[in-house]
Amino acid sequence: MCRKTGRIRAFRLEKSNKNYHPYFDSDFAKWIEAACYSLATTPDKNLSKTVDRVVKLVVSAQRPNGYLNTYFTVKNPSYVFKDLREQHELYSAGHLMEAAVAHFYATGKRNFLEAMMRYADYISSVFGREKGKKRGYCGHPEIELALVKLYRASGERRFLELSSYFVNERGRKPYYFDVEASKRGEDPAAYEWWTKNGYPEMQAHKPVREQKEAGGHAVRAVYLYSGMADVAEETGDKALFGACRRLFDDIINTKMYVTGGIGAVKKGEAFSTAYDLPNETAYAETCAAIGLVNFAHRMLRKELDSKYSDCIERALYNGVLSGVSRNGRLFFYDNPLASSGKHHRKEWYDCSCCPPNIARLFASLGGYIYSTKGSAVAVHLYLGSEANLELGGTAVSISQKTGYPWGNRVLISVSPEVPARFTVKLRYPGWCGKLSVKVNGKNIKGTAKRGYLGIERLWSAGDKLSIVFDMPARIVYSDPRVRQNVGRAALMKGPLVYCFEEVDNRAPVESLLLQVNNKFRVIHKAGLLGGVDILKAKGFLVNSGRQKQLYSGEAPKLEARVLTAIPYFAWDNRKAGSMAVWLRVKS
Amino acid sequence: MCRKTGRIRAFRLEKSNKNYHPYFDSDFAKWIEAACYSLATTPDKNLSKTVDRVVKLVVSAQRPNGYLNTYFTVKNPSYVFKDLREQHELYSAGHLMEAAVAHFYATGKRNFLEAMMRYADYISSVFGREKGKKRGYCGHPEIELALVKLYRASGERRFLELSSYFVNERGRKPYYFDVEASKRGEDPAAYEWWTKNGYPEMQAHKPVREQKEAGGHAVRAVYLYSGMADVAEETGDKALFGACRRLFDDIINTKMYVTGGIGAVKKGEAFSTAYDLPNETAYAETCAAIGLVNFAHRMLRKELDSKYSDCIERALYNGVLSGVSRNGRLFFYDNPLASSGKHHRKEWYDCSCCPPNIARLFASLGGYIYSTKGSAVAVHLYLGSEANLELGGTAVSISQKTGYPWGNRVLISVSPEVPARFTVKLRYPGWCGKLSVKVNGKNIKGTAKRGYLGIERLWSAGDKLSIVFDMPARIVYSDPRVRQNVGRAALMKGPLVYCFEEVDNRAPVESLLLQVNNKFRVIHKAGLLGGVDILKAKGFLVNSGRQKQLYSGEAPKLEARVLTAIPYFAWDNRKAGSMAVWLRVKS
Repeated sequence: MCRKTGRIRAFRLEKSNKNYHPYFDSDFAKWIEAACYSLATTPDKNLSKTVDRVVKLVVSAQRPNGYLNTYFTVKNPSYVFKDLREQHELYSAGHLMEAAVAHFYATGKRNFLEAMMRYADYISSVFGREKGKKRGYCGHPEIELALVKLYRASGERRFLELSSYFVNERGRKPYYFDVEASKRGEDPAAYEWWTKNGYPEMQAHKPVREQKEAGGHAVRAVYLYSGMADVAEETGDKALFGACRRLFDDIINTKMYVTGGIGAVKKGEAFSTAYDLPNETAYAETCAAIGLVNFAHRMLRKELDSKYSDCIERALYNGVLSGVSRNGRLFFYDNPLASSGKHHRKEWYDCSCCPPNIARLFASLGGYIYSTKGSAVAVHLYLGSEANLELGGTAVSISQKTGYPWGNRVLISVSPEVPARFTVKLRYPGWCGKLSVKVNGKNIKGTAKRGYLGIERLWSAGDKLSIVFDMPARIVYSDPRVRQNVGRAALMKGPLVYCFEEVDNRAPVESLLLQVNNKFRVIHKAGLLGGVDILKAKGFLVNSGRQKQLYSGEAPKLEARVLTAIPYFAWDNRKAGSMAVWLRVKS
Repeated sequence: MCRKTGRIRAFRLEKSNKNYHPYFDSDFAKWIEAACYSLATTPDKNLSKTVDRVVKLVVSAQRPNGYLNTYFTVKNPSYVFKDLREQHELYSAGHLMEAAVAHFYATGKRNFLEAMMRYADYISSVFGREKGKKRGYCGHPEIELALVKLYRASGERRFLELSSYFVNERGRKPYYFDVEASKRGEDPAAYEWWTKNGYPEMQAHKPVREQKEAGGHAVRAVYLYSGMADVAEETGDKALFGACRRLFDDIINTKMYVTGGIGAVKKGEAFSTAYDLPNETAYAETCAAIGLVNFAHRMLRKELDSKYSDCIERALYNGVLSGVSRNGRLFFYDNPLASSGKHHRKEWYDCSCCPPNIARLFASLGGYIYSTKGSAVAVHLYLGSEANLELGGTAVSISQKTGYPWGNRVLISVSPEVPARFTVKLRYPGWCGKLSVKVNGKNIKGTAKRGYLGIERLWSAGDKLSIVFDMPARIVYSDPRVRQNVGRAALMKGPLVYCFEEVDNRAPVESLLLQVNNKFRVIHKAGLLGGVDILKAKGFLVNSGRQKQLYSGEAPKLEARVLTAIPYFAWDNRKAGSMAVWLRVKS
């Protein structure tokens, strides 16, 4: 894809450029962030030069007072920070900060980081509880988590405090969005721009720690919750962390698709009520699934529990990965779980938040595999990889070799520089009925605690940890309160959700029934969709035959059929047709 | 209900009135039409005076040239007939004409009728193929059928010819809506106002006799098809009638809900593609079901076939009747076949076409019971009623006594003034497996022809015809190409479609399963909803119990339950809750 959208050129601040937009800077910032993650693991001279050049360009657009937003600088300088509800300025600032931090970690260069510290200081001079400052916060959360990253990279606690202010100010009365509207001479009642519930949409209806249910715009929600979790971790604020835990549990127990997608409704790109998870009209924005990964990842830092890492894995292999086509050039904005055949990935979107979000997540995937705490390392994801960690003062190399998620074996080499006593905590995936673990060929017994199996011993260079997962294709049901899935089931294998596409089944998938008592065959197809396991299952085709009347007393005839399922992430990469994750069952 | 909307006052043509609207005249016209139908069967002095008064008021608003539209006369006289696509002027004219014809038949007074003849003549001076005339037709069909009524009432063939012109001009190239837009200085490409398929939406995409599939805005469609059928009947145009038959068959075979509702999608209030009949989001506008009744009724005049009268009955008892609440004060605009509990009737709509449409249909219901041709009378509907007909020169009184659709017996008294030989053709309902017919106690055998059982004999005053229908509650399936209903079934009894409401079943209805092999119990509940038969059926509740995880391998538990169904038309008259016509089945 090579399409000029003016997003990079915008930083030249030319008046002739027609493509300025309040939040376009954020898309480019995410690209820089992704490029920096890539440089950190895969050095590339050309990319490195390009990054240097564009970082200079970005920094050059900063105003002397620290402010940086190409749209407002060029098009509407007198409107700066006058409409936080709509204008995404702090959101864009947050993405620039995330990019700067990534750039600093990848290159060691401080130019972008320091520019963003100046920007944060400028923001701090404008917003806060002190007299003379605006008590505002952004209509689209993002800066909260970015400021914590800036704090961690710079060591400057004032950025954590600014983040903490944004988190805690949100939702208080009088509503800031009302106050600023009145200042603009507008009627605050016109605020409910989006839906009748504009405030909850923007996470501005009540103070965050009073929130009991996930709601509103899903991306805004999980970005905010991520920032909340960051602040809670850094400040030790238990009440705030409790709110995060409550919101996380509410999502995974009542509002998450089996793919890890969230935000069921298109209107407002929002969460619906509990257990309302429509399939064909599922919004499940790619960015929201990514935001959920980020939120879960932050929860996991604070609290080792496989419910978080299971959620990360679920979203990564399904609702996030589905966001991009096999050739990497086409993107879903929304990721429905059923289609009549008309939903397809596109090259680009006017609001193109998702594509660069996928890029930065995949480029930073390595950061999701492990976490360490004291003399323990937790293995969250099973992924072929090499890592160098430090455990209680000892440098430890860890490498994984695995064909996961197709293969069910993982070989982990654990090599401390000198023999050392530490714990390796293996995630026991929620989807896995049984796993066996060996260290240097010897069986390990143990009970998982909150989904992690700890192996504490004296580790020496070259120790081999091998895991075999019980990973058959299996049938999955929804809690029947999900009315859309009553009488339906889905197939999974390991972390992968499967789906039925018309192209494999030669029939509209809504006329297929899955037999409940079934032996699912797993067949690896090296030549299909880049190499995937497909599933074969017994089922039925509801045959319309030569039915004459639209309605009759004759029960439709069932014709035995072998059904074929492919991984959900890989759908819509072949001939267009209907698709369903949840198939009707015949008991 | 007593709400002032300015629709009557508009005819005073006061500039101070703020409530003018291009098609508001049509709503009041439908009210007058309904009142006149009522006067025709149920004389009422007060109503009669009111009608006289308002008819005078309406006629007083007519301009000297014959034109009558309060909005354009007062608000925008220079725009008259400049935007047929949007402005509904000819549509409103058509409704005024229908009202005038009803007024003439009910009262014998010609003032309204003649005013409307002048209006039609004015329209004829503006539109037509002759040089200097506009080759236009209305964006919303209606005048076509109205002009045929005007022709029948006045005997003036020029009105039939004008109708014929409107029917046949429609959809020709260059598209009139393009031509008039250019004349207004607008870009014809901006025409696709409504959807990307603005032309099909307005039945303006191709000449009517080339149409093979029902499509576009459902009300516009069936109003047009009704006019086409009228013109075909009066002119003997076989090709045109063939198009009508094709379109009718397409509707009932692929695009009609089991309730007789049509127009599946809200966007454009339009037909969807064949077999796409979503339940919860069904639009199925009340006016569209009424329009379908009108269309079927016209087809039946030309061609005695019970597919037409079955369709009329289906719509009347289900998709039309659901449009009004039990107390007659609340109305559905759209009539979905499933609800999560949030869909309710309202007192009024800004666009209030449906309520007066229901009124005029119910007030003229008597006209749908019989039709005569030569020395035969066909009985289309089984309804307690009395009628005076003329068969081959003999006056015949017919009365029906029946508890239908609750009871399954109909007693018809046939009383010619003198004994006469003629045929009584009884509709053999499509839903009925078996019926028995007796004349004066003696069994009649015979084979129905196109759904009508003819009894030719010498009838004498007081002859008794008794019919007993086999009318058990029965299970109904959709053609499985209706993907939304695969794995589901509905219950019917006689012409009535049933539904399951949460209030009777104490559970969200989407968690109920209907047992296929079932004995349905019919219980008459005199005190319920004005007296209805309810159905009891064996089924199951899918129990969420204390399920911990949103997704798991545990199949939901089924708990045996006796399910209760009520007639669909009566839903949403009690406590709000979920509703479904098509219930999941357990085989």
